[in-house]
Amino acid sequence: MSTPALIHPVILCGGSGTRLWPVSRKQKPKPFLPLIGKRTLFQQAVARVTGSGRFAPPIVVAGAQHCGLIEDQLSGVPDYRLIVEPEGKNTAPAIAVAAARLPSDAIMLVCPSDHHIADDDAFRRAALAAADLASEDWMVSFGIAPERPETGYGYLHRGKRLADGFQIAEFVEKPDLATAKAYLASGEYSWNGGIFAFRAGALLNELNAHRPAMAQAVAAAVAAGREEGARFHPQAEAFGEIDGESIDYAVMENTDRAAMVPVDMGWSDIGNWAALHDALGAGGEADRSVKRDELGNVTRGKADLDKTCRNVLAVSDGPRISAIGVEDVCIVVADGEVLVTTREGAQRVGKLPGASQQ
Amino acid sequence: MSTPALIHPVILCGGSGTRLWPVSRKQKPKPFLPLIGKRTLFQQAVARVTGSGRFAPPIVVAGAQHCGLIEDQLSGVPDYRLIVEPEGKNTAPAIAVAAARLPSDAIMLVCPSDHHIADDDAFRRAALAAADLASEDWMVSFGIAPERPETGYGYLHRGKRLADGFQIAEFVEKPDLATAKAYLASGEYSWNGGIFAFRAGALLNELNAHRPAMAQAVAAAVAAGREEGARFHPQAEAFGEIDGESIDYAVMENTDRAAMVPVDMGWSDIGNWAALHDALGAGGEADRSVKRDELGNVTRGKADLDKTCRNVLAVSDGPRISAIGVEDVCIVVADGEVLVTTREGAQRVGKLPGASQQ
Repeated sequence: MSTPALIHPVILCGGSGTRLWPVSRKQKPKPFLPLIGKRTLFQQAVARVTGSGRFAPPIVVAGAQHCGLIEDQLSGVPDYRLIVEPEGKNTAPAIAVAAARLPSDAIMLVCPSDHHIADDDAFRRAALAAADLASEDWMVSFGIAPERPETGYGYLHRGKRLADGFQIAEFVEKPDLATAKAYLASGEYSWNGGIFAFRAGALLNELNAHRPAMAQAVAAAVAAGREEGARFHPQAEAFGEIDGESIDYAVMENTDRAAMVPVDMGWSDIGNWAALHDALGAGGEADRSVKRDELGNVTRGKADLDKTCRNVLAVSDGPRISAIGVEDVCIVVADGEVLVTTREGAQRVGKLPGASQQ
Repeated sequence: MSTPALIHPVILCGGSGTRLWPVSRKQKPKPFLPLIGKRTLFQQAVARVTGSGRFAPPIVVAGAQHCGLIEDQLSGVPDYRLIVEPEGKNTAPAIAVAAARLPSDAIMLVCPSDHHIADDDAFRRAALAAADLASEDWMVSFGIAPERPETGYGYLHRGKRLADGFQIAEFVEKPDLATAKAYLASGEYSWNGGIFAFRAGALLNELNAHRPAMAQAVAAAVAAGREEGARFHPQAEAFGEIDGESIDYAVMENTDRAAMVPVDMGWSDIGNWAALHDALGAGGEADRSVKRDELGNVTRGKADLDKTCRNVLAVSDGPRISAIGVEDVCIVVADGEVLVTTREGAQRVGKLPGASQQ
């Protein structure tokens, strides 16, 4: 039996995380914060794909404004590489540049840097299955076991069975609640969590077939790019000509070879304070600063919740939070800002003056 | 027609106001804060009984720890006197000491220093009526027109009509909700707001009849007391022997001559944050720092409430408060403390660790 090829992790650091304001800020956004546990989400994403002997050193794709943070947080990680995007162009160009920097036969595992995964073993088993499918030139997405009829995510409808997963019969945009409930009941739908595996050359072929202009611009930006230590700078002019687009729109929904590996790994995109409340309440990394009670209350930092509080998240970077009688509410104190939102309203935090004016 | 005798205002500064924590603090409690308008509740209480030509200079009764604050806030008020209680003994001894310092025929008007009254003219009309009754040796309480079936107050049941008011047929302790609703419907009950008028000598006679030990201790403390400029210090030893008691328990509920004057004057005891929310929402003193909207939201200080908030009070001494989706909630940021309470829970603020440990 031959030694299996190494998997090349590609960690994307594009998200701004404004819905986690006032903790997440433009200069130090969500991936680079220790939201769960003592390590940042980015550090956890990197740790998840190192140390098992199956992964090559990670390739990180990020904007110039975050390179300092990233290099600090990668301290001790050997041989990583950093692709510095001249500007944000969504996921397809970021992934394509990484693919163009790898040998054509390299298997890439594309991971967001701002999600939480409770079960790293389940993640790694799925990564190996996805890599196997990718080596057969499938464009592979992780199909995350849905935990609730979520209307904020895209869904993957599984089709024909494959050796290590399923073909994707259909991509579904954010459904309404009735549809989401039907998906959950059917057992045939998974959440599209933004984790992918590709053979580098196969991805570029698909991009060339479906988005030839983007593929050409990426090739030009890489060809005229510049190395600087561990950093690689695609050429700004060529990169700037790209029409930004997600990998789902540019490739996954167009290819004939979309596949998925089902995975149940305690995943959360930590998309807002309510999601962080759930992830912290479920446990996650050992962290003594987090306190939970049997009424669904979770606190981090100084907080006194009286016994009439239910399902409250209270997070403070200093001032004490005292609460009485509130239910299904997130209270966040950070950097001289005080946020109080219902769990339902947490989706709209990014639209607050404080979050958008920063 | 003879010139009517001056009314001697007696302003009581005993309350701690822990339910208005974290704004109200032991060292600077509720009466001395500008909770409504630019002047403090105490300053408003004093202003209410000066300047009409019917009132003598005020007598203020307070603990030693607040004398500095009081003298600052009385700046410009001529000829006030200050009775410094050696310790807090509830309202009966405070009022009795003031009575003992006045001529026997003086008419006293006893006013708490930490209530809000929107309609000063209505207050003054009631004060004159109460003074007339007091000059006939009635023990007079203001009977405040109830605005809702409040279960947190005592009630006065009106009896036989008098020239300027009514006899009090019955004192009722805090009723249950059904009883409070029946009181409101009957039109025969008023709130007992803690505002009283007495002839000084008549009050002392009644106290002597019903609480002879207290009357003796008060007389001894005053006889052995010490003047110091505008301050008068009752002797600590004699005063310390008093069993503290309210004027309601010590006199009003025992005398045969309890009377009331009905008054509707936009009264609030500002007993907690929900009450302050109501008082600020209703208008009160002109104050540009207070903003109101048509959804019941009231803000003071930096606050962004999104359009899904209803009936929220947001008060900050600096940090911005941002809120989404919350309803019937008070959010207070002061002195590095953050309080979030339902309006219903506002009664329990004084029991929070922050409020009781200060």
